[in-house]
Amino acid sequence: MNQARVDLCLNTATTRRQWDLAQAVDGYSRLGVGAISPWRHEIQAYGPAKAGRLLRDAGLPALGLCRGGGFPAQDGEAFRRHIDDNRLAIEEAHAIGAKSLVLVCGGLPEGSSDLPSARQQVIDAIAEILPDAKQAGVKLSIEPLHPMYTADRSCISLLSQALDICERLEPSKEGWLGVVVDAYHVWWDPNLEDSLERVTSQQLHGFHINDWLYTTQDLLEDRGMMGDGIIDLPWLADRVKASGFGGLPEVEIFSRYWWGQDPEYVVQTCLKRSVFVRERLSITDPV
Amino acid sequence: MNQARVDLCLNTATTRRQWDLAQAVDGYSRLGVGAISPWRHEIQAYGPAKAGRLLRDAGLPALGLCRGGGFPAQDGEAFRRHIDDNRLAIEEAHAIGAKSLVLVCGGLPEGSSDLPSARQQVIDAIAEILPDAKQAGVKLSIEPLHPMYTADRSCISLLSQALDICERLEPSKEGWLGVVVDAYHVWWDPNLEDSLERVTSQQLHGFHINDWLYTTQDLLEDRGMMGDGIIDLPWLADRVKASGFGGLPEVEIFSRYWWGQDPEYVVQTCLKRSVFVRERLSITDPV
Repeated sequence: MNQARVDLCLNTATTRRQWDLAQAVDGYSRLGVGAISPWRHEIQAYGPAKAGRLLRDAGLPALGLCRGGGFPAQDGEAFRRHIDDNRLAIEEAHAIGAKSLVLVCGGLPEGSSDLPSARQQVIDAIAEILPDAKQAGVKLSIEPLHPMYTADRSCISLLSQALDICERLEPSKEGWLGVVVDAYHVWWDPNLEDSLERVTSQQLHGFHINDWLYTTQDLLEDRGMMGDGIIDLPWLADRVKASGFGGLPEVEIFSRYWWGQDPEYVVQTCLKRSVFVRERLSITDPV
Repeated sequence: MNQARVDLCLNTATTRRQWDLAQAVDGYSRLGVGAISPWRHEIQAYGPAKAGRLLRDAGLPALGLCRGGGFPAQDGEAFRRHIDDNRLAIEEAHAIGAKSLVLVCGGLPEGSSDLPSARQQVIDAIAEILPDAKQAGVKLSIEPLHPMYTADRSCISLLSQALDICERLEPSKEGWLGVVVDAYHVWWDPNLEDSLERVTSQQLHGFHINDWLYTTQDLLEDRGMMGDGIIDLPWLADRVKASGFGGLPEVEIFSRYWWGQDPEYVVQTCLKRSVFVRERLSITDPV
């Protein structure tokens, strides 16, 4: 990694209304961001091979590709399509040199109230694609999502629930299957400390930072910048470090407010507002 | 209870934009609703004694008074005020003959990120007011709220977390301290079934029904009517019954949509859309 770069990864969702992939790669590089986590639609717009060259030419490594998952389906045919699509996502992640494919596992299929079945489909699907991921050298990272997204985005809501799946499908805990801990999704969980004690450093693939605004106005597009909300990020950074996490923290903010700002200002704010988190971590494995 | 009445309680929040307390008491009675759960500001507007007479004259028993709680505070003085206010709420609940005072325990004090302290304040406060409640013959019912309210409304988010407090402060599990299970707040929890197996019939003070709309538009005012969303209410009713719950289910819906409808139509819809829940319960202890 370029020595001038800061130990921070930016998820392109943070600037998605202002910059496309090429602009983000250029902007993040110029401003000293250490790594990037792009989204599949951005990779597909260029084609995975060309997108991979774009990142390599800029010397900007990809951490996670967002996102695989979306497994639960109303019928077997749709479930097969979801599996196939995730295999494609693994190939895309490989093509851009991403360390992992982030899994937002999916909510209830439309018309269904059957959470146990949806959760079983998630387990079945990950069991099926895990060998492909391993063969491609791409880790699979389950990202538990806040319970306000259980219905329509992820029936995997708790870190403990994600770890149950990891332990079941990969008892060796080698870390081909692991988790992303996103502050926004897990900060409220009274069992978070226990779950962070349980995760191994191999299983802890990512640490997303942002903030929960005290009076959140929107379920989707009102995440806060670090320091603007109520998440105890120093505490969380210490716990994540104690779990052996040695990677770059990653800023991922979905916010109408920040999408309305000058993107260079957004990136600079991310760099500045992440200092107190970066200083607490011990980054031994930046990419 | 009047034989013509239906085994359903209505929380006045469901019609709060259309009806004040006297109108709700009149409307619920005329339409055959079996019980009412009013809010403190409604009781205070009449004065507790007069409000109690209003309910008794209508033959409409009060289940829960909404709401005590709001315990965490920035300093000791504010904490004392919260305790005093909850003692007043216990008196109000007693005056209207309510079976219980519902506790929405409170979120983070403004400016604080210290969830563990807020949670400890909740425990300390309940420990302090529990003898008063017992003396007044009013049960205290902790209502865990959905994690999207952890910051600003309730740092008690999981049913298991509420039960931990109950067991700690009342090891006898007599039920002066217990819980309200609100479908909207707990449906998503992968550990819900385990928690419902753990709760005793004495501890299970209330069962609130409503629904989670698949694509929820607002954090506060977009709850669904039973049947319009994705909560598996038959499953939940069966689990609640298996836990020994013998009371009336209670409809509590915060919804801009339903607040915009004719209140008699809202009440009739609640009666109709709760049949499939009421039929699954075994109501041995209606009031």
